[in-house]
Amino acid sequence: MTQVSTHDHIVTSYGEELDDLADEIARMGGLVETQVIDALTAVVRRDASIAKNVRKREVTVNAMQVEIEKKVIRLFALRQPMATDLRVTITALRLASDLERIGDLAKTIAYRAADLNSYPPLDVTQRIERLGNIVTRQLREVLDALSADNVEPAIRVWRNDDEVDEHYNSVIKEMLLLMSGDSSLVDPGAHILFVAKNLERIGDHCTNIAEAVHYQVTGDTLESVEAAAP
Amino acid sequence: MTQVSTHDHIVTSYGEELDDLADEIARMGGLVETQVIDALTAVVRRDASIAKNVRKREVTVNAMQVEIEKKVIRLFALRQPMATDLRVTITALRLASDLERIGDLAKTIAYRAADLNSYPPLDVTQRIERLGNIVTRQLREVLDALSADNVEPAIRVWRNDDEVDEHYNSVIKEMLLLMSGDSSLVDPGAHILFVAKNLERIGDHCTNIAEAVHYQVTGDTLESVEAAAP
Repeated sequence: MTQVSTHDHIVTSYGEELDDLADEIARMGGLVETQVIDALTAVVRRDASIAKNVRKREVTVNAMQVEIEKKVIRLFALRQPMATDLRVTITALRLASDLERIGDLAKTIAYRAADLNSYPPLDVTQRIERLGNIVTRQLREVLDALSADNVEPAIRVWRNDDEVDEHYNSVIKEMLLLMSGDSSLVDPGAHILFVAKNLERIGDHCTNIAEAVHYQVTGDTLESVEAAAP
Repeated sequence: MTQVSTHDHIVTSYGEELDDLADEIARMGGLVETQVIDALTAVVRRDASIAKNVRKREVTVNAMQVEIEKKVIRLFALRQPMATDLRVTITALRLASDLERIGDLAKTIAYRAADLNSYPPLDVTQRIERLGNIVTRQLREVLDALSADNVEPAIRVWRNDDEVDEHYNSVIKEMLLLMSGDSSLVDPGAHILFVAKNLERIGDHCTNIAEAVHYQVTGDTLESVEAAAP
């Protein structure tokens, strides 16, 4: 593959420009995945130094979204993509937006991890870890599906969102019970409620990415296919 | 202006197609604004029937986003927009996405309004109402700025997000205090925490729309302009 640096694009064909765009999205996906794993580790291991790294890396994630948007606008302006190329190019915007949102949610979790360190550990941490593990698995699987243009695992991720919701609900219930039983847990508990909510939302963005993969590969929306399924 | 129905596009010029797109976004904006006002009223007036309407209308909001995306893809495919037209066309996707998210957040608030009705009223309702009023004002102003292609009010909305954050923080503090003092308030209080969070996020989407208006009109990002300001 041609060597392409971000600042010096010597790209000769449309195919190469599309590859370049896909590479940038893959890089952004990889970075965002690290963000989520680190944010979760910061909460579970109560490690403020990891939280700090997540907050720093957020700047790079945002810059990557801007870079992807610029590439897409240039593609539209110079190449006038049609058919599949048009679909891939337009989907890139959606993917970058979902990845940026996931990065932002990871950053928010990292902030809350730092806040949580000023309180004693909570009994609900194991449940948060389990929820976080399911969500990071969803993210990894949907990013793999994206890299491989593979619809099957994308559909699996889309369907598995129920599992995320189930675990989210159980964290919330458990945490509210603990808060009702001990008023000193209300403040740290509120942080946990929001961490759980953010993880659940990362799960939602994974289903958005799954829908984008499906649309990019097949040209059909996942909802319409699922609605027509027996 | 030419009569254009959603199902029977007899559009003769690119300008008309762009007008049609702008009209659809304005309609979506109006509907989403109603969603937010009704969701807030459902919480403040404890009116379950309004909450129901919000949840029903959500389907229309989602359909409008899909319709706008289709229009944009058709514009790219058939018209190959350049320069300002390209900017307007690509921004339409971002606007539709932010409006859809605001509609979704309003729906979630409406669900929580229904849940909150099974608990006695909370002392924090007035603060929620004030936060909600600021957020709906932000939304109205940014939608007006969008309709008028007016950058000044968009910048004002962007800057006023601090006011939203201040009121959000005061709701959260007050609610946590009430929850710590009375364990029977933990469950309804958690709903209020999430309602406040959703209102704050609607405020964030208003700043996104403000950025989109600025970019659409000037071709520059608002962040870069603000960073260069004295």
